Amino acid sequence: MRQEKDFLGSREVPDEVYYGIQTLRAVDNFPITGYRPHEELIRGLALVKAAAARANMETGSLNKTIGEAIVQAAEEIASGRLHESFVVDVIQGGAGTSMNMNTNEVIANRAIEILGGEKGDYARVHPNSHVNMGQSTNDVFPTAVRIACLNVSQALLSGLSELRQAFERKAEEFDGVLKMGRTHLQDAVPIRLGQEFSAYARMIGRDRKRLENAVTSLEVVNMGATAVGTGLNADPAYIARVTDILGEISGLPLRRAENLVDATQNTDAFLEVSGSLKTLAVDLSKVANDLRLMASGPRAGLKEINLPPQQPGSSIMPGKVNPVIPEVVNQVAFQVQGNDLTVSLACGAGQLELNVMEPVIVFNLLQSLDILRNVVRVFRERCVVGITANGERCAQMVENSVGVITAINPHVGYEVASAIAKEAINSGRPVREIVLEKGVLTEEELNIILHPLEMTNPGIAGAKLLKR
Amino acid sequence: MRQEKDFLGSREVPDEVYYGIQTLRAVDNFPITGYRPHEELIRGLALVKAAAARANMETGSLNKTIGEAIVQAAEEIASGRLHESFVVDVIQGGAGTSMNMNTNEVIANRAIEILGGEKGDYARVHPNSHVNMGQSTNDVFPTAVRIACLNVSQALLSGLSELRQAFERKAEEFDGVLKMGRTHLQDAVPIRLGQEFSAYARMIGRDRKRLENAVTSLEVVNMGATAVGTGLNADPAYIARVTDILGEISGLPLRRAENLVDATQNTDAFLEVSGSLKTLAVDLSKVANDLRLMASGPRAGLKEINLPPQQPGSSIMPGKVNPVIPEVVNQVAFQVQGNDLTVSLACGAGQLELNVMEPVIVFNLLQSLDILRNVVRVFRERCVVGITANGERCAQMVENSVGVITAINPHVGYEVASAIAKEAINSGRPVREIVLEKGVLTEEELNIILHPLEMTNPGIAGAKLLKR
Amino acid sequence: MRQEKDFLGSREVPDEVYYGIQTLRAVDNFPITGYRPHEELIRGLALVKAAAARANMETGSLNKTIGEAIVQAAEEIASGRLHESFVVDVIQGGAGTSMNMNTNEVIANRAIEILGGEKGDYARVHPNSHVNMGQSTNDVFPTAVRIACLNVSQALLSGLSELRQAFERKAEEFDGVLKMGRTHLQDAVPIRLGQEFSAYARMIGRDRKRLENAVTSLEVVNMGATAVGTGLNADPAYIARVTDILGEISGLPLRRAENLVDATQNTDAFLEVSGSLKTLAVDLSKVANDLRLMASGPRAGLKEINLPPQQPGSSIMPGKVNPVIPEVVNQVAFQVQGNDLTVSLACGAGQLELNVMEPVIVFNLLQSLDILRNVVRVFRERCVVGITANGERCAQMVENSVGVITAINPHVGYEVASAIAKEAINSGRPVREIVLEKGVLTEEELNIILHPLEMTNPGIAGAKLLKR
Amino acid sequence: MRQEKDFLGSREVPDEVYYGIQTLRAVDNFPITGYRPHEELIRGLALVKAAAARANMETGSLNKTIGEAIVQAAEEIASGRLHESFVVDVIQGGAGTSMNMNTNEVIANRAIEILGGEKGDYARVHPNSHVNMGQSTNDVFPTAVRIACLNVSQALLSGLSELRQAFERKAEEFDGVLKMGRTHLQDAVPIRLGQEFSAYARMIGRDRKRLENAVTSLEVVNMGATAVGTGLNADPAYIARVTDILGEISGLPLRRAENLVDATQNTDAFLEVSGSLKTLAVDLSKVANDLRLMASGPRAGLKEINLPPQQPGSSIMPGKVNPVIPEVVNQVAFQVQGNDLTVSLACGAGQLELNVMEPVIVFNLLQSLDILRNVVRVFRERCVVGITANGERCAQMVENSVGVITAINPHVGYEVASAIAKEAINSGRPVREIVLEKGVLTEEELNIILHPLEMTNPGIAGAKLLKR
Repeated sequence: MRQEKDFLGSREVPDEVYYGIQTLRAVDNFPITGYRPHEELIRGLALVKAAAARANMETGSLNKTIGEAIVQAAEEIASGRLHESFVVDVIQGGAGTSMNMNTNEVIANRAIEILGGEKGDYARVHPNSHVNMGQSTNDVFPTAVRIACLNVSQALLSGLSELRQAFERKAEEFDGVLKMGRTHLQDAVPIRLGQEFSAYARMIGRDRKRLENAVTSLEVVNMGATAVGTGLNADPAYIARVTDILGEISGLPLRRAENLVDATQNTDAFLEVSGSLKTLAVDLSKVANDLRLMASGPRAGLKEINLPPQQPGSSIMPGKVNPVIPEVVNQVAFQVQGNDLTVSLACGAGQLELNVMEPVIVFNLLQSLDILRNVVRVFRERCVVGITANGERCAQMVENSVGVITAINPHVGYEVASAIAKEAINSGRPVREIVLEKGVLTEEELNIILHPLEMTNPGIAGAKLLKR
Repeated sequence: MRQEKDFLGSREVPDEVYYGIQTLRAVDNFPITGYRPHEELIRGLALVKAAAARANMETGSLNKTIGEAIVQAAEEIASGRLHESFVVDVIQGGAGTSMNMNTNEVIANRAIEILGGEKGDYARVHPNSHVNMGQSTNDVFPTAVRIACLNVSQALLSGLSELRQAFERKAEEFDGVLKMGRTHLQDAVPIRLGQEFSAYARMIGRDRKRLENAVTSLEVVNMGATAVGTGLNADPAYIARVTDILGEISGLPLRRAENLVDATQNTDAFLEVSGSLKTLAVDLSKVANDLRLMASGPRAGLKEINLPPQQPGSSIMPGKVNPVIPEVVNQVAFQVQGNDLTVSLACGAGQLELNVMEPVIVFNLLQSLDILRNVVRVFRERCVVGITANGERCAQMVENSVGVITAINPHVGYEVASAIAKEAINSGRPVREIVLEKGVLTEEELNIILHPLEMTNPGIAGAKLLKR
Repeated sequence: MRQEKDFLGSREVPDEVYYGIQTLRAVDNFPITGYRPHEELIRGLALVKAAAARANMETGSLNKTIGEAIVQAAEEIASGRLHESFVVDVIQGGAGTSMNMNTNEVIANRAIEILGGEKGDYARVHPNSHVNMGQSTNDVFPTAVRIACLNVSQALLSGLSELRQAFERKAEEFDGVLKMGRTHLQDAVPIRLGQEFSAYARMIGRDRKRLENAVTSLEVVNMGATAVGTGLNADPAYIARVTDILGEISGLPLRRAENLVDATQNTDAFLEVSGSLKTLAVDLSKVANDLRLMASGPRAGLKEINLPPQQPGSSIMPGKVNPVIPEVVNQVAFQVQGNDLTVSLACGAGQLELNVMEPVIVFNLLQSLDILRNVVRVFRERCVVGITANGERCAQMVENSVGVITAINPHVGYEVASAIAKEAINSGRPVREIVLEKGVLTEEELNIILHPLEMTNPGIAGAKLLKR
Repeated sequence: MRQEKDFLGSREVPDEVYYGIQTLRAVDNFPITGYRPHEELIRGLALVKAAAARANMETGSLNKTIGEAIVQAAEEIASGRLHESFVVDVIQGGAGTSMNMNTNEVIANRAIEILGGEKGDYARVHPNSHVNMGQSTNDVFPTAVRIACLNVSQALLSGLSELRQAFERKAEEFDGVLKMGRTHLQDAVPIRLGQEFSAYARMIGRDRKRLENAVTSLEVVNMGATAVGTGLNADPAYIARVTDILGEISGLPLRRAENLVDATQNTDAFLEVSGSLKTLAVDLSKVANDLRLMASGPRAGLKEINLPPQQPGSSIMPGKVNPVIPEVVNQVAFQVQGNDLTVSLACGAGQLELNVMEPVIVFNLLQSLDILRNVVRVFRERCVVGITANGERCAQMVENSVGVITAINPHVGYEVASAIAKEAINSGRPVREIVLEKGVLTEEELNIILHPLEMTNPGIAGAKLLKR
């Protein structure tokens, strides 16, 4: 055990751990979810510390030996090492101070080690004076969060491109499958299955675009802001450099906020991203619902399409296969919508110079990004690409429908058409039969009007008849 | 025009209006929604004023002549008159102060009139000194809100009882209709349509019970609390009487809060009621979804039931009828859930001795109660009572299903059953045929096992076979 | 009374009304909120009908006499006449069918009148065959909604520009006001009041930009889609023209959707706009909270700023003035967040070719736009522009603070600084006094370091000392 | 590796693992959150399996040797062993089927081991035929969830009792601390700090009561329902026993649902519990906000109370201590509100005989229960019990306030009082001074009226003066 102290007193810290007293206090204070920090957030924090140390060395504020050790320690963490030393709960008081101090302590102790010292010998490398030099939680933490979110977003954006393409391919594959279109869950007019999948593709495409736009707002960081955005204690030369260095080592197009006071207290960029994820979630849920509905059956449902079976569906009903992948899409969508509410509530709780609720914002935002990234991939791989169409059944339902009356409507007028439709519904007889019986149109005319493809492209089906 | 003044200055008030300068300022300050206050809230405010005046007369604080005029004016309003004088927007700053002052001014001016004076002659009857005697917005407004909510709740509770009964009646009517049960939208095992309707009835019954419990918390009022719950300026004798009088004249079982500080600053009772309405809304939405799904068709859907047609469904598709009533149930459910979020946000914004966000709480809570009351009635009258079953189609789907394999399962074991199910699904052939072909069971055994009613009551279908 | 009929039967319609049987049925079916349609939505519907009639005349599908009468009737409505004839509840089943039919009927009857006929004589001008020619509720209604939203958005966007400017002006006015910065509601380091107002201005600016981007997605309309997006029954020549004509007569930059199936079934554009309004609402709420907090007092609060008094604040506490305008900003923010949830829920309920929940989407979206537009104006006019600063009090709190220790930190190290801070807090003595007593820094050095402006600009306060 | 198969094919399963092919498929299908199931849920599932095996042995359906092995395996799991074998993601498709199958497989393999066999030898003990005998995921899973929720709830309920008591003790401790009451964040009238804490205690008490009521609805379980609530394949004798046995071994007051179809498809009990947690969260957040506000400072805030310091508050501002515990209360509150939305969305997605979204419901509900339980304890231990009052500062603010004018009001009338208040505000002079200067009241009268305690109990302060 080593003894560490801060201005509230002293605590024993196990010799082997890289974190220190402040981390220890935070662990005691926040036994909330039991979840450890997201590894991309740890990586982001390490990158920030490396960049700050470099900038501080450049300006001469930070001794080279110490600085290099800090950079090395930070890079180790950025490359995935020592993550088990990040032990503060994801939901924590204090605007991320404990996460920042956890990082400062781990880097300081690892740097001390690198320099040949023993952990806890902060005279060599001090968590605050050296590792945190020129920084505050209030610029470090939101910057690290942005890096983490940007990195996870990239994977989600790629996944959405692939999902859109998967739907596009299905749209082509199903372009010849005529089926009944439904509005209000009631038979409407014919449509092609490919047209439906094409609509999914386009919506996903818009969702991707929206997210892409939203995340650009995360590229603006507030390094140099320190406590409240005024930049107190941050050397202007350091401020001028740190963001550029961070951009280089993270490989992200980061820019310094024009107004650091604004950038320190406001979290609207997170809310914007979360909002775009919510929209994506709602849209994915709609698609999942449609697929589940169209795949309902096998005998007592619509059964227009088949989803690839992934697992036995029941512990009691043999042979049952359930649409488990769309179901998990729905559930992720619900989770993301709930997370968005949490993010909204937390973003609305900013007060004056800071929003101290950032930890819960970040936890939810990163979770939403993660689970969407995961489910979008699963959705494509284990569901969309394997969907097949039951073309014959689809065609049968069109033939049997009353909805074709809409195509006849322009040729006979709304009221006559209504009467035929009503009779068809009440009697259960086909529309075609009634039309012929009533002598409203000839068989030849009907064949022209009711040609299925004629009914799924713009224009009046059988328009040429009207022109005769 | 008459001239009125307050400590911020003076304003011209049209001669004919009953409200005064403070109302006028509020109208200018809050041009937000354009919606006028709920009439039950106006009634509630009037009843509070009448009760306070009576109590103040009893304690001798209020001159009888003035007091009687106030009571008469308040009762006129409670009976529905002068509501056009309540002109402050439903969303208003100030914890309802403007609504309270609007009430004070209208009652004062009407009382002055009753006493033979001219509007604005506040020396006769003063909005604050007389009408608001011993009161504060902070006890008057939440008390009036409770009265309003309790009154609207009664109608909703009755409506829910009737809706539950309507479902119960349908449950009996449809008790003999065998249909396919579905889980995951996939064919599961048979069920009776009546069993489904019975489940709706029970859920609605629980929702009613929950709401009934929740609204009892509204019966606790904080009259006598004045500004912060300490009762400053309220005569203890008045405090001892006012709630009882209010209970009498409102006909509601009101009780004084044991802790007036608590009752003045906390709005959890509203949140509790809103939460129970949210649960009701979610439940109604589920039922509406089920009905829309079961009524889908007429040809290319499930079409197990028919909803009574209420209006032509399309401006372009003749003969189309849509499930407009369940659709409006869904929409009301969405509105109520959104309103609950607004209520939650507003309830969470209480600070120290008061929650100033009460106006938006009340607007949403009363709207939720109103639209639920309305839609519950419409749902019953224009949808539920008129539902009919397509028994033949239901039976056909059961016969044709693979789901009956579950009943066979205990007789042959899960793995054999799975294989038969798989073959049935892949081949499209009936389960019965495959079972017989494989010689797994005899026809006689199958007839016993697959008897439809045998499959919808607890127990192993054809259990007697196993005992042989 | 005149007799009208549809395929469900016949009804008596009062002679004088412009609407017909379908509207009448809808009024009976949907007694939900009691709210009439938004006037911008009525206008939007009328413009759509005018554009469609023009396009249909151009293609020769619609007789000129009838077409001109329809156009004239529609233009009358667009200019504000006959709005009392739009009587269907805002929350209605059926995807807006009833709103569309209400419009068709009113226009048909007015057109009949124009042509010298009697209302109800649909042989002259038919609501469906003529007014709705080539259209479906499913393209008409969402298009009209987009027009309405775009128009209300313009006013909100202007209001946000003005609000941002108002904050910018205050930022300049308050640039010299030094005050204590606070994080976690705890004294942090000094900041200038102008910096805070500048941060508000920038955030509002981003909110405006976000909304501006979002509403461009509303410019894409699906006229020509008819029932399910396939364009069945819409003449290709008509489709090619109708959106352009609508753009011209509405003065909006409308574009036809590339994929009409997608555009007919998906409502993500509404969700995107609602999401941007939610973000705006959350941000406005944060500013309102800050203003209320800084204006708290007058004696027992922060009282750094004064809000212009708008109305007496209490019915019982004389002289009390409350921050009613920020309070109404908060409440509108809560309402908009609740509305966004309703919109999300409704958008998530789209099924297959259509989202039938559009009426509740539109009601909430237009309400959010309306109340934000209104409150943004009120906020600026009745609050922001009149805010004054209590510079002396602000300065006093800085002088008296412990937070200045942060500026001393780089000169003495974190641990020494912590000890001084702790002593200052415990003893209640000024930091300056303790520093001098301990001989850590000289008075001259302190004066340089603690110079207030030195502390609110980037850099180490008194950096020159370090360089000596 | 051992080979396992199901009706979709076969898979290699590592020899050492207790789970089997269905679990393996689920792991592949649902790589979503990375979170493993809640241990109380695993325990609940094990208890259900033990109870079912016992009941099946009683009815003679299950061979004693196999049954006893199943019971032993299940009890091992219930006591905390083999939890690492539960590997399916918390968010999973399929209504919990995979969780149920994971349980069936682990118990089967452990039972096989107990009986001396090798894992995978399902001829000895079969996951479906034996472990799942008479059961379905659709009764097993929701029942296990209820057990888990009831168990976690108990701890939360105890925590709430303790928190309420802690506030009550503080209420007594602070009963003599006079302070300024505030409404609208504006000085209102005096109150005692103890009165405020007493209000917190009562609200927490109501929250506890609400939760206690809500969780009783979880005591109703649907064991025996099997797939859709009809009880198909469950022996009536088994149904009659299983719930009682489960009640005994779990120690919970479980009851069988009267209507098993209802109990299988409806999730309103979860929504009810989640709603009561939401209300609790909102209320806790209000208290946390108040504490943070009253503790603001130390110099430039209200500083009426001190929160016990728990950790250094800043990486840059020495000596700063932040209210980290209330901050984490707020964040948990936001999380719980978001979780409630997720639960609402998922509960609203039930369809026909089942709600397949239960996994996400359970994940959120258990998380809410967990984090509330944790934070309620931390809040009490690390914040509430250590709060101290700054009585002198509180008194000073009262003395200095204008709010005392309310007490004077009944003695001089609202308009005179308003004028004095206005003058006091404008001039910055004490109310007392102005009153005396104007000769409105004598010093002796003022002393009687403005006696602080006189002002915090019901009644007109100095009422005796009025009676003279």
